[in-house]
Amino acid sequence: MRIALDAMGGDDAPGINIDGALKALAKWDHLVVDLVGPADQLNELLAQHDNVSDRLNVLHASEFVGMDEKPTEALRKKPNASITVCWKLMAEKKVQAVVSAGNTGAVVAAGLRTRLFLKQVKRPGIAVVLPTLKGQCVLMDVGANPAARADHLYQYGVMGSVYASEMLGIERPRIGLLNIGSEDGKGTDLVREAHAMLSNSYLKDQYIGNVEGRGIYQGEADVVICEGFVGNVVLKVSEGMADMMFRVLSREIVGALDTERDKAGQAFKAAAARYEYREFGGAPLLGVDGLCMISHGSSDAHAMSNALGTCIKMRERQINQMVVDNLAGSPTPTA
Amino acid sequence: MRIALDAMGGDDAPGINIDGALKALAKWDHLVVDLVGPADQLNELLAQHDNVSDRLNVLHASEFVGMDEKPTEALRKKPNASITVCWKLMAEKKVQAVVSAGNTGAVVAAGLRTRLFLKQVKRPGIAVVLPTLKGQCVLMDVGANPAARADHLYQYGVMGSVYASEMLGIERPRIGLLNIGSEDGKGTDLVREAHAMLSNSYLKDQYIGNVEGRGIYQGEADVVICEGFVGNVVLKVSEGMADMMFRVLSREIVGALDTERDKAGQAFKAAAARYEYREFGGAPLLGVDGLCMISHGSSDAHAMSNALGTCIKMRERQINQMVVDNLAGSPTPTA
Repeated sequence: MRIALDAMGGDDAPGINIDGALKALAKWDHLVVDLVGPADQLNELLAQHDNVSDRLNVLHASEFVGMDEKPTEALRKKPNASITVCWKLMAEKKVQAVVSAGNTGAVVAAGLRTRLFLKQVKRPGIAVVLPTLKGQCVLMDVGANPAARADHLYQYGVMGSVYASEMLGIERPRIGLLNIGSEDGKGTDLVREAHAMLSNSYLKDQYIGNVEGRGIYQGEADVVICEGFVGNVVLKVSEGMADMMFRVLSREIVGALDTERDKAGQAFKAAAARYEYREFGGAPLLGVDGLCMISHGSSDAHAMSNALGTCIKMRERQINQMVVDNLAGSPTPTA
Repeated sequence: MRIALDAMGGDDAPGINIDGALKALAKWDHLVVDLVGPADQLNELLAQHDNVSDRLNVLHASEFVGMDEKPTEALRKKPNASITVCWKLMAEKKVQAVVSAGNTGAVVAAGLRTRLFLKQVKRPGIAVVLPTLKGQCVLMDVGANPAARADHLYQYGVMGSVYASEMLGIERPRIGLLNIGSEDGKGTDLVREAHAMLSNSYLKDQYIGNVEGRGIYQGEADVVICEGFVGNVVLKVSEGMADMMFRVLSREIVGALDTERDKAGQAFKAAAARYEYREFGGAPLLGVDGLCMISHGSSDAHAMSNALGTCIKMRERQINQMVVDNLAGSPTPTA
């Protein structure tokens, strides 16, 4: 499998991107990585490593989109941005996946521009895996599509369900619709319409109806679908709250102890590491014809390597073919 | 001050509602409480208490809305529901505030039916106080108005700002707009329009622009405004995540210790108590001509008493008059 890695995406790019690529290449021997970015800078950094795999290729891209730039403006001004070159490689079928820890808006916008959508998919969406009291849950969409229609939400149910079953090993995942009450008829026109579509679809036996914000972390559903504005807020509120609670609690609990402060401090660190969603190394943009993993800006080499590994697993599991088959095999439900 | 207390609202009603009322009556000697619910049942319970204050009156209401009932349907079927009677007392100016720990949807719907809005207020909204790394933050609206317009969001800025300054003692509160990116031009039409209105209003010097989900708990703003669907999700996701983290962390950290397990367990309990938002005893529905506190269904007597106390403070601080003055004194901004 050949993957284009955006060398310039992320808070610590390109150093840790190179480290992540080398880590992944050592782990998966059928992996080839095209490292996309300023060739001189990348070659110079690579020269500092011993025994660089010959499955690592540097592909030149003279520009890149900064983490704080406005995505559409930056992409227009910088036609040779690394993320644009990555997507171009995928559109030309030269690579099977794109991985970036860069500006999420730019990764998505550069991808949507290629119109590289899977057959029948109307709008790709980003799926994240969240920890819950009962295990894990796929939340989709978390920001690719902040003005979703009901049929988009229905398709997120289709895609999220495939992702949960293939990547998390959950048979017949329970699908919930994020809403502000559990009873029927709650919420906005959008969610009421999506509710009707899901209830009338081939997913109806997996669909458990409305799930409230609280229910996500209680593990009420294996897949929770929502439009991108709400999903993005959920993801970032969760990150912010987890961060606050780790800080406040570790200070208070450790401070309340006398002799076992070190033990408690280490236990907090171990727990915090598990909350950093590094297992999958990022979140996939599902619905594109090809694979795309969007990693957190603060990714380390381990997370970056995992993002490449997740692409390998998604390809093995034929996620995309299953989405296409499910959409083709079932009539579009009515609202 | 005279307050109508919905005796039947809450998971443990009416027992703890009575306890909360008695606690408050002992604390504030100019408080009068009308306890609204089935008179026989309430009088029987009151007979078990010694020295019941003569500032506690039982007002009969034969029906009530259950926590899981559909609000509008329940209110239609039960014209004598306790919450409806409470609002009627306020509309008739017999009480100055309504307090309920009942079905939030029913409290709001019964209130909106009275059309008891402050002058110029278009839609009331619910404000909650959340803990942050830097102190506290007012989030508004958390569910009264799930289909808000931009001018509603602007008015939430006006009301949230008054609440933060008078109730939290924050001078010139910084107001943020909840969005999915920090740069201008981000998000949906709704938030872009609200952004323009706030930027063109008398609040422009307090308005700090977009705040992301993560920024709420980092304390980036003193007031964060959003439409009710998103706000409700934020509140419930926060509750769910806090609950999960307390459970998981207390188990893991305490489990990692040998000799100081009890100390750590007690420190966790103390921290958890502070996360239960009981200080204010609930969240006000701001924008109504009168006062309304909506308490959590799981409120205990302490929270219930605090909800009554918060009404007293809101009246002393003349929150409503300030909202009316601010709206009347400044032209409605353009988008």
